[in-house]
Formats: sequence, C-alpha cells, structure tokens
Amino acid sequence: MPNNQAQLDFIKNSIITIPDYPKKGILFRDITSLLENPEAFKTTVELLVAHYRNKKIDKVVGTEARGFIFAAPVALALNAGFIPVRKPHKLPRHVFKEEYQLEYGKDALEIHTDAINPGERVLMIDDLLATGGTIAATTNLIRKAGGIVEDAAFVIDLPDLGGKTKLTEMGVNCFTLVEFAGE
Amino acid sequence: MPNNQAQLDFIKNSIITIPDYPKKGILFRDITSLLENPEAFKTTVELLVAHYRNKKIDKVVGTEARGFIFAAPVALALNAGFIPVRKPHKLPRHVFKEEYQLEYGKDALEIHTDAINPGERVLMIDDLLATGGTIAATTNLIRKAGGIVEDAAFVIDLPDLGGKTKLTEMGVNCFTLVEFAGE
Repeated sequence: MPNNQAQLDFIKNSIITIPDYPKKGILFRDITSLLENPEAFKTTVELLVAHYRNKKIDKVVGTEARGFIFAAPVALALNAGFIPVRKPHKLPRHVFKEEYQLEYGKDALEIHTDAINPGERVLMIDDLLATGGTIAATTNLIRKAGGIVEDAAFVIDLPDLGGKTKLTEMGVNCFTLVEFAGE
Repeated sequence: MPNNQAQLDFIKNSIITIPDYPKKGILFRDITSLLENPEAFKTTVELLVAHYRNKKIDKVVGTEARGFIFAAPVALALNAGFIPVRKPHKLPRHVFKEEYQLEYGKDALEIHTDAINPGERVLMIDDLLATGGTIAATTNLIRKAGGIVEDAAFVIDLPDLGGKTKLTEMGVNCFTLVEFAGE
C-alpha cells in the first residue's frame, strides 16, 4: 500500500519533540500534540486501518497505556476484538505474565489467558517502536495464549534503537508510519 | 435520547462480574469481556457518540488507563481532539496537577497546561463511575486549563457509591449507559 506522503508528513509534523526528556540527551517524541489535533489523529488511525483492512485480523492488542489510544479505534474499524496487555495486577482474571528487561531493572506485562482463541490472527499496536522490548514481551504473551502474531504496527519508529530488527528476528512483521532517525 | 434498551442490555450482559476482586466482598465489573466482543464494543461507542453528536464538543478527555479505550474512539467520531489525563511523570510538557483521595492514601493526575484552549467545550469519558474521585480531579484540571466542562460520560455507573451525586454538586452533568446497583 503506497501511503500518501503528504499524510505521513502531516502526521510527523504533528508530533512535538521535547529535548532532554525524560533525561538529558533524549529527544522525546510527544504524541499528545498529534492526539489534540482531530485531523492528525484521524489520519493516523485511517492509515493503520487501511493497511490491515483486508488481512482478516481477529484481535487487536494494545499495550498499556498509550497503545490503547491507537489500538482501540483500529480494533473498532477492523471489526476485531480489542485486547489490553497491562502492567501486573491490573487484569482481574487468570493471566499469562511475561517479564522483560528495562534499561535499569525489569518490568512485566500480562494478558488474560482466555483473551485470544487458538489460531486467531492478532495485530499488536503501539505508539512508538524503540528497542522493541514491550512488543517482544507482548508477542510471547500472544503466542502463549495460542494466537498467531500477524504484525506489529506503530505510529513512530526510532530505527536507531533496533526494535524492528529484534522483532523481525522473532518472526514479527512491523509496519510503521513515520520515523525519527539519526538525531 | 431514548437509548435502545436491547442495546443497553447487550452491553450490560457483555460485562463479566468477578467476585472478591481486588479484595473480598467486592464485585469487580470487568470491561475486558466487552472489549473482546467487537459488536459490544462498537455498540458502546456508538451510544456514547450518538448522545454527544450535536453538542459541539471540542475536546474529549480520557483518564489513564481504561478511560483511553473509550475516549479515543469517541473523540475521533466527534471530530474532537483527544486529551489524556495521566498519572504523575507521564506527560512530557508543563502540567497542572491535582491530588485526590484514595481509600488509603492519595494519588494525583496531570494534564498539559496547553491541552485545552480557554472556552473550549470538554467531555470527560471513563469506563466506570464509582466514588467519582478521579473525574472530580479531572474536572478541576480542565477548569484550571480554562475549559468548560460539558459532561462526564461513563459506560458503567455504580450508583451505590455516590459518584453521580458528587459530580452533579460540582456542576458536572453525568451520562451513563448501564448500572449495577444494590448488590
């Protein structure tokens, strides 16, 4: 699907960059400026939906918390179920849990064990692909639950951090709209 | 707007109740079962959107994290900006902060100071209305930012916990789809 370059430029230009956040030397890409702009948010969701319209997605998984913002409308538009992957102790039923490495220490994510039926085709959506740690953990959760990980889609790719390579090696195809590289 | 009772029953029946979660004696209303069902999730969002279609809403505020799931698609459908209200240290720009009381201790919520333009009409959306603490704090944040709090909308009301009374006393009109009472 050839994306309309003007739409992608519009999306990229709607994302504010905050220097030195959360710490010195980091350029933080702030999607809240995109979300505040109805036209930019709508265009973003439409491009994600267009890419997956005919791919028979059964479930769309969003990761807490910013992933929910894009995954929920995409699930609705694809007529797929929405599945939240959450931090520990947030989901009330039986869960699978997956730990993953942070820069300092560990974190974990959980999914309801019955959220995905065996053989269902699952799309993961998050706002930003950096090192890929959360989506790698989410991939493992979906596979534990019996789902077929179809793809991972992101609004933003930070290719310098290697997330796409890591996920591709796990057999996860990545679709990203805009990238910020070499800065 | 007379809601279609069959649609409301369908929504209510799509919400699982978990006894004794997160602690003994609590009946937890689990919206993940609704979200997994594309028809139930779509019906929920459509009823919220239908209620606000002609009310000239400029911004839809969702509270972290479950509020995002409903607020984002409603914002898109109303052609309004989506504004996240988040736990401390999650928003990268200048924020207003509002503390509120929990059963044990305190918590706080933040909004970007420039998220809402003075005089904009704002709709708050969350999954569930219990004591109303988070939405009362969110109301204060929106008013600090200069917005006009139009309404608060919820999928679920737990009327026994008094949230609607509390918010009404603050001048916030509440719209709720289904309620669980007297249990």
